[in-house]
Amino acid sequence: MSDAANSKLQAMGKQMVNEVQRGEGPTFETVLRTKSNTIFDEGMGCLRTGEKKETRKFLSVAQARTFMQTVAIAAKSRQFLKENLHTSIRGLFYQLKFTLGEDIDEDLFTEQSESNALIEDLEVALKIKREDLNLTTDRKGFVAGPMTIMDKFGGDDTLIDLSKQGRSGWSIPSDVDNGMEIKELDADYVLVVEKDALWQRLNEDKFWKKENCLLVTPKGQSTRGTRRLLRKLADKKLPIYCLMDCDAWGWYIYWTIKTGSMNLAYLGKDFAVPESKFLGVTMSDIKEFDFLDKLTIKAKDVDVKRAEEMLGYPWINRYADWVRELKMVLKTRKKIEQDALQGQRLTFVGEYINKKIKGKEWLS
Amino acid sequence: MSDAANSKLQAMGKQMVNEVQRGEGPTFETVLRTKSNTIFDEGMGCLRTGEKKETRKFLSVAQARTFMQTVAIAAKSRQFLKENLHTSIRGLFYQLKFTLGEDIDEDLFTEQSESNALIEDLEVALKIKREDLNLTTDRKGFVAGPMTIMDKFGGDDTLIDLSKQGRSGWSIPSDVDNGMEIKELDADYVLVVEKDALWQRLNEDKFWKKENCLLVTPKGQSTRGTRRLLRKLADKKLPIYCLMDCDAWGWYIYWTIKTGSMNLAYLGKDFAVPESKFLGVTMSDIKEFDFLDKLTIKAKDVDVKRAEEMLGYPWINRYADWVRELKMVLKTRKKIEQDALQGQRLTFVGEYINKKIKGKEWLS
Repeated sequence: MSDAANSKLQAMGKQMVNEVQRGEGPTFETVLRTKSNTIFDEGMGCLRTGEKKETRKFLSVAQARTFMQTVAIAAKSRQFLKENLHTSIRGLFYQLKFTLGEDIDEDLFTEQSESNALIEDLEVALKIKREDLNLTTDRKGFVAGPMTIMDKFGGDDTLIDLSKQGRSGWSIPSDVDNGMEIKELDADYVLVVEKDALWQRLNEDKFWKKENCLLVTPKGQSTRGTRRLLRKLADKKLPIYCLMDCDAWGWYIYWTIKTGSMNLAYLGKDFAVPESKFLGVTMSDIKEFDFLDKLTIKAKDVDVKRAEEMLGYPWINRYADWVRELKMVLKTRKKIEQDALQGQRLTFVGEYINKKIKGKEWLS
Repeated sequence: MSDAANSKLQAMGKQMVNEVQRGEGPTFETVLRTKSNTIFDEGMGCLRTGEKKETRKFLSVAQARTFMQTVAIAAKSRQFLKENLHTSIRGLFYQLKFTLGEDIDEDLFTEQSESNALIEDLEVALKIKREDLNLTTDRKGFVAGPMTIMDKFGGDDTLIDLSKQGRSGWSIPSDVDNGMEIKELDADYVLVVEKDALWQRLNEDKFWKKENCLLVTPKGQSTRGTRRLLRKLADKKLPIYCLMDCDAWGWYIYWTIKTGSMNLAYLGKDFAVPESKFLGVTMSDIKEFDFLDKLTIKAKDVDVKRAEEMLGYPWINRYADWVRELKMVLKTRKKIEQDALQGQRLTFVGEYINKKIKGKEWLS
């Protein structure tokens, strides 16, 4: 259990009780998660919420329901911490739905979307992660390589050796902080490949063993757990290299890892890895590797639109290499998938990665 | 590498060469995967393709392209088997796209959907699984419990103990047959829960340890790998109990495990587990457990339509218990999720499962 989270929840409750005892209506102060309060922090190199705050009042017809809901979520989370049990935000929703269920005819929550937004409010207000409140989130993503993890879970201490996981690898859990510790780590760098299929290809080639790296796949967009793990590995001074599709989705996955994304900006620096480098696939690769030219795909509207948007983001357009790449997309209207690297021969992808890393041929 | 697959591919090639040497045009015989050739096999208790066959001819304007594509896929698969390397069907697509790439202006394949359908043709024609052709498929799903697996992969022999995987469990791979063996197995039954969140809840409670079972989640619809693993466990005489949402999707997931589904019927008995039992969540539960009544959701059109369809399937409507349940859905227009079992208290779900199993309170 996270002691910090517990203390913060207690402090929040005490403050409200104090307000009531002083004869005031209880209040709850949180940080605005609006677009206008989202800033790119040059110093940290990531998106984060700004300083604009909002005070919610219980004694307000417009806010009473939301206020009560927020307090109910805080109370439930504290109960989970005390019980030392975890559940999903769906599980939390049902517990909340049940709370008022017996006697009162009105539901405290009718849709899960209501409770989801309030969990985010609590996270920014208390400066904690929902994982610290014993709330599990979707997990996805795998790792293999020279690292051992101590997993203190359900009363057991389990040492997991990520170099002995066979074809499956180790599934990155929802929470890689509480009750979990990196024990041994003897890797030279981290390679993140967008797709599980390519991860399996490289795992079969024992790429991580030959190159002494950690082989990670987020399996598409990164979960919170995967982003936290990458942050922790970057904190241990490991370079983080990413290999994604050269299309709207691949770029989005990369930039979410690197700086966070607009709608997840509230997560801030604990979930961002500004040190990340983009190995490929790039538009320039199409020229450099002859065989790739036949394997490009026509860019879709979404790819073109995304490239245009990205050129407008100040945290992207300050990199000349990215501007050049994105303009090439707009000019050629082509895109290319990482799977195409297998077109000529299955094992080429490893050679490609080595060439890129050794030659420092990456994008910011 | 699968020797059987290799022999079958060779035989297919030799037959075509013989036809050519006899002065005939080469042919390829496969089994029709149409709805009219899909039958429910009472003896096996699952859906399968019938006996109707189709012969494809190279010397036919309408079929020449498809014929050539089929032969190209067979040749590529044999190459992968010889190289002892695996790839995804997307990787195969790019290799095929590249094959004619150098000299000929026309692509052998323009869309992956073309190659996907032909892989299925090969599977039914040669009576093999695509996994035997070194083609990997999407993986999803986890297991924890008293079982060890020997994974011979990429030249290493790795013994994996599924009781020592901490919060993550063991990720069920794409292929659980080739180079993989169940070594020790000391479980009394298999529990399959639809959602990963509930799996994590039960894993935290060490449900599999207390009850000496294997705890599986397909994480939604089952992958081929998960279905094959369940089939193998059923072959070892372990009862297979399933806990799904009481809605269109949950029922579909269950029946796909049990009998296969209409569009995957060609997979047949190797991927079906007719022995499976449906523990819940059931419409009857809403009456039996008072607290659940407040936690139901209004059934959507898709749920109602699905219930009506299922009542029309002869392999479902022969079970009086399912007919009763589905009629209750049509009458009450309610549904309920497995997450709702946590509404009263997080640990209730384990008690619920035990009550169901001990009282043999399941649906066919």
